Amino acid sequence: MEEKLKQLKTILAEVADLQYAIYLLGWDQQTYMPPAGAEARGQQLGTLGKLLHLKFTSDEVGKLLDDLAPVVAQLPPDSDEARLIKVTRRQYEQKTKVPAEMVVELAELASVSYSAWQQARPENNFARFQPYLEKIVDYRRRFADLFAPYDHIYDPLLDQYEPGMKTAQVQAIFNKLRPLQVALIQAISARPQVDASFLYQPYDGQKQWDFGVEVITKFGYPWQRGRQDKAPHPFTTEMGLDDVRITTRILPEYAGSALFSTMHECGHALYDLGVDPALARTPLGFPDSLVLHESQSRMWENLVGRSLPFWEHFYPRMQEYFPSQLGNVDLKTFYKGINQVKPSLIRVEADEATYNLHIMLRLEIEIALIEGSIQVKDLPDAWNSRMQDYLGLTPPNDSDGVMQDVHWSDGYIGYFSTYALGNLVSVQLW
Amino acid sequence: MEEKLKQLKTILAEVADLQYAIYLLGWDQQTYMPPAGAEARGQQLGTLGKLLHLKFTSDEVGKLLDDLAPVVAQLPPDSDEARLIKVTRRQYEQKTKVPAEMVVELAELASVSYSAWQQARPENNFARFQPYLEKIVDYRRRFADLFAPYDHIYDPLLDQYEPGMKTAQVQAIFNKLRPLQVALIQAISARPQVDASFLYQPYDGQKQWDFGVEVITKFGYPWQRGRQDKAPHPFTTEMGLDDVRITTRILPEYAGSALFSTMHECGHALYDLGVDPALARTPLGFPDSLVLHESQSRMWENLVGRSLPFWEHFYPRMQEYFPSQLGNVDLKTFYKGINQVKPSLIRVEADEATYNLHIMLRLEIEIALIEGSIQVKDLPDAWNSRMQDYLGLTPPNDSDGVMQDVHWSDGYIGYFSTYALGNLVSVQLW
Repeated sequence: MEEKLKQLKTILAEVADLQYAIYLLGWDQQTYMPPAGAEARGQQLGTLGKLLHLKFTSDEVGKLLDDLAPVVAQLPPDSDEARLIKVTRRQYEQKTKVPAEMVVELAELASVSYSAWQQARPENNFARFQPYLEKIVDYRRRFADLFAPYDHIYDPLLDQYEPGMKTAQVQAIFNKLRPLQVALIQAISARPQVDASFLYQPYDGQKQWDFGVEVITKFGYPWQRGRQDKAPHPFTTEMGLDDVRITTRILPEYAGSALFSTMHECGHALYDLGVDPALARTPLGFPDSLVLHESQSRMWENLVGRSLPFWEHFYPRMQEYFPSQLGNVDLKTFYKGINQVKPSLIRVEADEATYNLHIMLRLEIEIALIEGSIQVKDLPDAWNSRMQDYLGLTPPNDSDGVMQDVHWSDGYIGYFSTYALGNLVSVQLW
Repeated sequence: MEEKLKQLKTILAEVADLQYAIYLLGWDQQTYMPPAGAEARGQQLGTLGKLLHLKFTSDEVGKLLDDLAPVVAQLPPDSDEARLIKVTRRQYEQKTKVPAEMVVELAELASVSYSAWQQARPENNFARFQPYLEKIVDYRRRFADLFAPYDHIYDPLLDQYEPGMKTAQVQAIFNKLRPLQVALIQAISARPQVDASFLYQPYDGQKQWDFGVEVITKFGYPWQRGRQDKAPHPFTTEMGLDDVRITTRILPEYAGSALFSTMHECGHALYDLGVDPALARTPLGFPDSLVLHESQSRMWENLVGRSLPFWEHFYPRMQEYFPSQLGNVDLKTFYKGINQVKPSLIRVEADEATYNLHIMLRLEIEIALIEGSIQVKDLPDAWNSRMQDYLGLTPPNDSDGVMQDVHWSDGYIGYFSTYALGNLVSVQLW
């Protein structure tokens, strides 16, 4: 059996290498790739995705997993070996349901859709993005159908990001949370409002970058094992257990965007960087619960990064970076300002109290898209009317409305609720 | 036959995608990868190299090439289809001689060797690099042996970079060239010497970068289809016909390094960017004569970039960038300065007259290493004594001697002569 396990690990190591190469192709696409490279990049992602898929779903892997099944019962259930075989088996059963052509289709579609979104968003041109999003939604409906029977057609999509999670479970949690969250926001809004205007003024971009770097260096982000770059939408990715990279986005007239997104992505990175080197190049080396992943990013961003003890230490330093903006703002005012609760348009810049409502809105919309009860062409209206219901705001344009997030353009549907659930888990762990 | 050709092209497209992904892994390694990522990067390059190799050397490709062989005779010999089949056949016959394990071995070896070189060179520590270089030389000897019988053991290595070229041919060219080159250098050295000291003083790095960008923009480098980054040793690479990237290296106290290497790499890039889109994702989309490739880079660097007409246009602009350094240097002095003939230590910064001697030295050393007539441990002495013979100089250290070039650390042996032959071809074409 030792020999069989070794054979399996050899194949899984090659699968992991392909995955890391795919992650690099994706990182490059969102950071440095010249615009004309997009079409070829889609082809490359398609080919590598297909090769990964064929290698992982091969009969050889199936046979090895069958041969190893009896071994699992004899192993301690939490041992690396037992978990490796179980997790690989689970992924194998899922991936074998998806034909290789559909893997290529998604990679190529996501690549051109991402380009279209990148161009359509600054132009505030939803019509340009719409045909791509229609294909993504159509794809995800067909994808979900591969997993029939299911309790709900959205279940297989959720499962991609949080193994085993069901639509009904998320809805139950959100249904309980929503009235409490709304009541909390109402209670806050009935009280005197916090002034956060000092955050919204010109802040030098390089200094924003430098201060963020200083903060996450103190968080323990190991620069020998990672790096930070700029991207239109911040994300974390990895090319190995010792190469976990983050990105950030600098807004020249708002001090909170780069700073909190840098902390957030650093939280993701520290989680990945904590993986045991013994799990390298196996499926266990890729944490697959995004709820837990988001619990770590949201913890560093909010439970640490918006706390008073944190700022008692860091605020004098931030004032040194920005004397003209913050020299006359005292710690207490600053602390209240970065914790201001105020309905706003952009999810990634929302405060902790309203944040989950952004997620609930997205979950409803995604479910409706996948059920087919709303059409992509009607999305801007659906988005705007829900924004009014949930947050009392109507986006002035689609750039800051339905087109604000990168996820759909990347082919992700089912991801968003992990953020809100991550918030809940982060507080429970804390 | 249409169907067979289509099948072949489908496989070759996947091979090309893997090649581009490998190029991206390499580009990233030399530009942005954090240091701790090196080990995993070697594994990734090994795995992708192996998958590419297995796909290209598969029986299916062999069978398709056999089936297509009779077709070639009926096609116009210079047609894309005829050339595609012939070039693919040639590469197939070569690659099938190399076992997949050796492909993985080289990828992993080159990755750790490159890291070792990156650390050893600034430390001037040849002993640190030596064991890696020994493995590279040993590898290349075993690699060459796979192609036996050969006229000379170095032939299969040359052939990697210039298809069909023989050691005896290069030696014959160099034997004819050397005495003429030496006589020319002697004649120049007997005349009053040119002053180039103004090139060797502090030049702001960002301004060096900006001026280089301005120059190659005028050369026609299309920034939508490429980009420039910094690397320890300048190179050009591509992730597709519309994504051809260059790198440069800035020396803060010498104006010539970044400028001429930027022009040089731009020359490489323009050649790759000129490939017919119809040849995308086929072996014909990857120019395989490095002599022709270097003829283009050396042409832009030297025949254009060191010419008087070029500087009549650009020199006033360069003076605007560097008024305190060049304000009092007139065009004629500048022009003579950048064309100064003076034996020097570093190949990439050598003048046109002495440059080829640097190459001849390397060719002799590589042949001796592969023949086994010198050992890696004796390389610094062999290098330094030849430098004395050829150029009348002894390097003060190994960093500026035997460790100056990246090529060996990357596993390349057989490459260097293409630079000198490229010089000759560039002038012939010009």
